[in-house]
Amino acid sequence: MVEKRYNYESLKELSLMIFQKLGYSNEDSSCITDVLLTADLFGIESHGLQRLWLYQYGLDTGRINLNAKPRVIKETKLSAVIDADDAIGHPTSVKAMSMSMDKAKTFGVGIVVVKNSTHFGIAGYYSQMAAKEGLLGITMTNTEALVVPTYGKRAMLGTNPIAISMPAKPYPFLLDMSTSVVPRGKLEVHIKREQPIPLGWGVNEEGEVSDNPNEVNECISKKICGGILPLGGAGETFGGHKGYGLALAVEIFTAILSGGYTSDLVRKRQNVEKCCHAFIAIDYGIFGDKKYIEKYLSEFLQKLRDSEKAKGASRVYTHGEKEILNSVDRMKNGIIINEKTLKEIKDICKRYNVPLRKYLIPVQNDLYVDNR
Amino acid sequence: MVEKRYNYESLKELSLMIFQKLGYSNEDSSCITDVLLTADLFGIESHGLQRLWLYQYGLDTGRINLNAKPRVIKETKLSAVIDADDAIGHPTSVKAMSMSMDKAKTFGVGIVVVKNSTHFGIAGYYSQMAAKEGLLGITMTNTEALVVPTYGKRAMLGTNPIAISMPAKPYPFLLDMSTSVVPRGKLEVHIKREQPIPLGWGVNEEGEVSDNPNEVNECISKKICGGILPLGGAGETFGGHKGYGLALAVEIFTAILSGGYTSDLVRKRQNVEKCCHAFIAIDYGIFGDKKYIEKYLSEFLQKLRDSEKAKGASRVYTHGEKEILNSVDRMKNGIIINEKTLKEIKDICKRYNVPLRKYLIPVQNDLYVDNR
Repeated sequence: MVEKRYNYESLKELSLMIFQKLGYSNEDSSCITDVLLTADLFGIESHGLQRLWLYQYGLDTGRINLNAKPRVIKETKLSAVIDADDAIGHPTSVKAMSMSMDKAKTFGVGIVVVKNSTHFGIAGYYSQMAAKEGLLGITMTNTEALVVPTYGKRAMLGTNPIAISMPAKPYPFLLDMSTSVVPRGKLEVHIKREQPIPLGWGVNEEGEVSDNPNEVNECISKKICGGILPLGGAGETFGGHKGYGLALAVEIFTAILSGGYTSDLVRKRQNVEKCCHAFIAIDYGIFGDKKYIEKYLSEFLQKLRDSEKAKGASRVYTHGEKEILNSVDRMKNGIIINEKTLKEIKDICKRYNVPLRKYLIPVQNDLYVDNR
Repeated sequence: MVEKRYNYESLKELSLMIFQKLGYSNEDSSCITDVLLTADLFGIESHGLQRLWLYQYGLDTGRINLNAKPRVIKETKLSAVIDADDAIGHPTSVKAMSMSMDKAKTFGVGIVVVKNSTHFGIAGYYSQMAAKEGLLGITMTNTEALVVPTYGKRAMLGTNPIAISMPAKPYPFLLDMSTSVVPRGKLEVHIKREQPIPLGWGVNEEGEVSDNPNEVNECISKKICGGILPLGGAGETFGGHKGYGLALAVEIFTAILSGGYTSDLVRKRQNVEKCCHAFIAIDYGIFGDKKYIEKYLSEFLQKLRDSEKAKGASRVYTHGEKEILNSVDRMKNGIIINEKTLKEIKDICKRYNVPLRKYLIPVQNDLYVDNR
């Protein structure tokens, strides 16, 4: 697929303009834009401007409440529960993580959970907010049910990502992972390429492992049995019950603690989303000298990167390294936008009379990008 | 393998007697025994009386310090750091989790980290301590390095288990999982049976995926390159980088926060263990009505168990269910002890003049147990 690259700053202005046209304040538009474009900078295009249409669709269907008034419904020194009132996910999530960080700075730990929310972009954005201010940050969210439990065939759990961040040099530790073997986007890539999927990614309507991405994807779209497998794959041979358990732990921290919708209820109807998030911040200064702890982590991560490589491998990465390297590349060489996303952005711009051309500034020649 | 079953109460007396002979107080012997026999009750025989020899060996080699004086080296309202002084893992860990629970009951959250410790048995014992008192409990530990990072071939990380517990009916939620695709014990089972291991469990000295359990196990024993793969297997196709990241997160919560040994240094010499643990307790009453939260979790777990089964599968389990069912079975029908463990116990009893026969009370006829 041809994927062109465009200037970051101009795309930022474009996204700001679009969210303002969708009805958001300058402040909220700026917040949402920063989350989306951080995903693009990190190289997680699936969660960047590629999602613009999803937010517009959410507003059109009533899944997202433009005039939402999120409120804190319970608060203690260390914790809070927020009812997001079906608001777009990003601004409430930034506020929730900020609350959690304030609590951590004052008392050592903060845990803020959010219910009745909508898609908040990449989980790693919020855990990184904490890391940037010298805290250990953890973010979780449940999602629409796409994942079948071990030995089951009905998708009951979301891809339920967990992100964990901690400051380190030269790269922070930033783990941002779904608890499923793959996110749904990977099925879509294989559908586009007309390639079978590896056995162990998903199951069909009978709960049998399938190599047909269309079959698995259709199960999800039609909300019939079948779906993606938990991290560790089918059964217990490769630890599928562990990924299933981690997805359940995310469900506890998000839906169960907040009293919100569990994944099996999220997006069950076109006009309902109601997912739940958790934002945890820990001031690791309560355990020792912060500079020493950061240095110790940095040294351990360096040891891993320096460790012996497997035959045929050139590098051992640590989590967060690729995101930082991608950001440097995208800032210099532009954000990657594929044809489909470009068309979606064009449609939105047309609808809201946004002069797209003004904001679409190519940075270099077109690239064939092999975005596995 | 022939595995006989013996009366639980008598084995408890036997274990108590042995730890007293090894030099422990009644209180400590009782604590260690309870952790070991809980593993046997749960059906996790690899971490039950099968480990008796390991503790004796630890004392013999000086890895475990019989006269250790664990002490709190830093404490805040929500947190503590304990230097275990190379004590046997269980009593310090029970004290650490108790401290964490006291903090949670008073302030909402407690996080206690421990360094310079030794093998503490099953992580789930300590998370269950919290759940039994109406708290959400999390336990982590690093271990000797057995696991290679993604694209690496040098074992740099432990199997680094995470246990998470929360009260629910009729079974608590109890996830107790290593962050590797399998624990080392699974290699040993395949060696005994002279069976190849599934491709994706481990790599050889070159970092190539191997189906030879002897080859992978020897890499670990000789501390040369090669070892077990993280949850998700080799490379990134099935999410191996996620298991690697989770193992790193455990390393952060245990070794980095406590300033103790990272897994690459644990048990590096025969007379050194020095692993690190983390014990977290959260009073979920800070988020809402505890009875309501417990009921909501119980209902969601029941929904999962009731969900449609994959073709050929008879049940969808939730985590903690098997442990409770096994406990009921073992209490009634006896604890399973295999021949090798029986021989080890005989040797220890001979050395310390413990009248083994008195404590070894068979419960039923010998069974052939297929302990996959």
